Amino acid sequence: MSAGPSLDDIQVAHRRIAPFIHRTPVMTCAALDKMAGARLYFKCENLQKTGSFKIRGATNAILQLSAAEAARGVVTQSSGNHAAAVSRAAAARGVAAHIVMPKNAPVVKVKAVEGYGGVITFCEPTIEARDAASRRLLEETGGVMVHPYNDRRVIAGQGTAAIELLEDVPDLDMLLVPVSGGGLLSGNAVAATSLRPSVRVIGCEPANADDAYRSLKSKHIEKNATTDTIADGLRAQLCDLTFGIIRERVEEIARVTEQEIVEAMRLLWERMKLVVEPSAAVALAPAIARGIKADGKRVGVLISGGNVELSSLPF
Amino acid sequence: MSAGPSLDDIQVAHRRIAPFIHRTPVMTCAALDKMAGARLYFKCENLQKTGSFKIRGATNAILQLSAAEAARGVVTQSSGNHAAAVSRAAAARGVAAHIVMPKNAPVVKVKAVEGYGGVITFCEPTIEARDAASRRLLEETGGVMVHPYNDRRVIAGQGTAAIELLEDVPDLDMLLVPVSGGGLLSGNAVAATSLRPSVRVIGCEPANADDAYRSLKSKHIEKNATTDTIADGLRAQLCDLTFGIIRERVEEIARVTEQEIVEAMRLLWERMKLVVEPSAAVALAPAIARGIKADGKRVGVLISGGNVELSSLPF
Repeated sequence: MSAGPSLDDIQVAHRRIAPFIHRTPVMTCAALDKMAGARLYFKCENLQKTGSFKIRGATNAILQLSAAEAARGVVTQSSGNHAAAVSRAAAARGVAAHIVMPKNAPVVKVKAVEGYGGVITFCEPTIEARDAASRRLLEETGGVMVHPYNDRRVIAGQGTAAIELLEDVPDLDMLLVPVSGGGLLSGNAVAATSLRPSVRVIGCEPANADDAYRSLKSKHIEKNATTDTIADGLRAQLCDLTFGIIRERVEEIARVTEQEIVEAMRLLWERMKLVVEPSAAVALAPAIARGIKADGKRVGVLISGGNVELSSLPF
Repeated sequence: MSAGPSLDDIQVAHRRIAPFIHRTPVMTCAALDKMAGARLYFKCENLQKTGSFKIRGATNAILQLSAAEAARGVVTQSSGNHAAAVSRAAAARGVAAHIVMPKNAPVVKVKAVEGYGGVITFCEPTIEARDAASRRLLEETGGVMVHPYNDRRVIAGQGTAAIELLEDVPDLDMLLVPVSGGGLLSGNAVAATSLRPSVRVIGCEPANADDAYRSLKSKHIEKNATTDTIADGLRAQLCDLTFGIIRERVEEIARVTEQEIVEAMRLLWERMKLVVEPSAAVALAPAIARGIKADGKRVGVLISGGNVELSSLPF
């Protein structure tokens, strides 16, 4: 048994965060259905506040702080969507957010965090420097760590996307979710398989950073051999908490090539007129590449985010 | 009194075409509201079938053909969204669509028409060659011309967007609509001012192709001095029919610079994660540039389309 959140935890999280997030639309596209040979239902978290699902978990964690904890603020380490989400969720509660970012983080991400009021501590771009900076901040501020995925509150928050999707499309056969550290995949796997036991949850991962695929095979947490993928949000690795849930709830991990990711991204932009980031396109890619048994099925596709630097697109 | 469609015509059109089009969402964005100093409601026709509002007018015209007319097919001349829309609307009724396009039309537009089953006749890229090719096709096929804007059925179809927008947001103060040949602007001006007489309808136009602005000033149809604008859908000129309606129903034409168009386009992509074409961004640009009196108002923004060549973006 994993120590992950229960369906009840996720439902409570949904009621807790609903006033602070968008109920994102579920979109469809006849042209993509044809290409996939399936009926696709896109849960558009690229249209979520801060441009990604991360605001769900961050909000759920921060709203549960005690008054004393809230007074001391929160700390996290991220150069991506989680940093912006924690900054915004913290600001919404009047809580200080301390964000550790590598000093080579893209300017656009730095500006997003600053725009939401996060206070950045820059560090060298190594795991050691990042962890040391986080520890120092936690000691100095007495704040609470809000980890991007190794946190039950965060996982429960991310899982609220599947609650909404299944409310809108109750008879899903399959759900495709990108996997990185596993917070999004594990949370939504708990919600979806609890609400609808017949649904097959599939994690989607770049072949160039396939730790989850190999972990599910070997039954141990594997490290990424490389993280050389355009899907910049999918370079992290599973932790004990998320791996435990994923082993129980996820049927398989579908791997996709860099070319398949870019092709899926282009289709989402051209056919659906949605700005999505490469990591989000990873969830569509297996359906287009026909790498999964989805023929004639009703398939949820979790479009995780839309934060992308417009001046450096892959097409 | 113009000979344009009445509100009743537009309401009938809406019931006629509703099964064949998307009910597009109305989206909002807190960040853009702040920049505009107004509450903006984006009617997202970039998410419409064929990627633009043009399917509304084309469908309304083609569904009204008699059986004999339908058997002979339709003819139009367009290198843009209207060509794709006529092709698709015709295919939906099993009607042949003959499209005259300049032989230098972008490959992506040619492919869109072909993808929807339109039969293309290429011509030299001059107005004379285009008109001659259309006349020849009309004679040869006995088909019916579906003009992109000089057609009451088409204008009535385009106006159905405002019906939906006002159903979703009944208390609009203002409506911003791009203007080119004037079909979209005139149809939506009739619908909006009939349903809500207090609404101020404003046409939005590139300063580099400002025939509508000058026509409203001089009270005669003026020609474009230049059409040197990134807004490739807004290079046409008003006709008697659309000008007559616009004189009666439209308060003013707001002109925007090329830089303002690109900036508005970038904001829609970055902040709203919407792929929009430059012509659609023209409707947002006056609100961001504060060129209109919209302070504190509830403003509809008609996002006309999202068909853009991803490999040649202006940012």
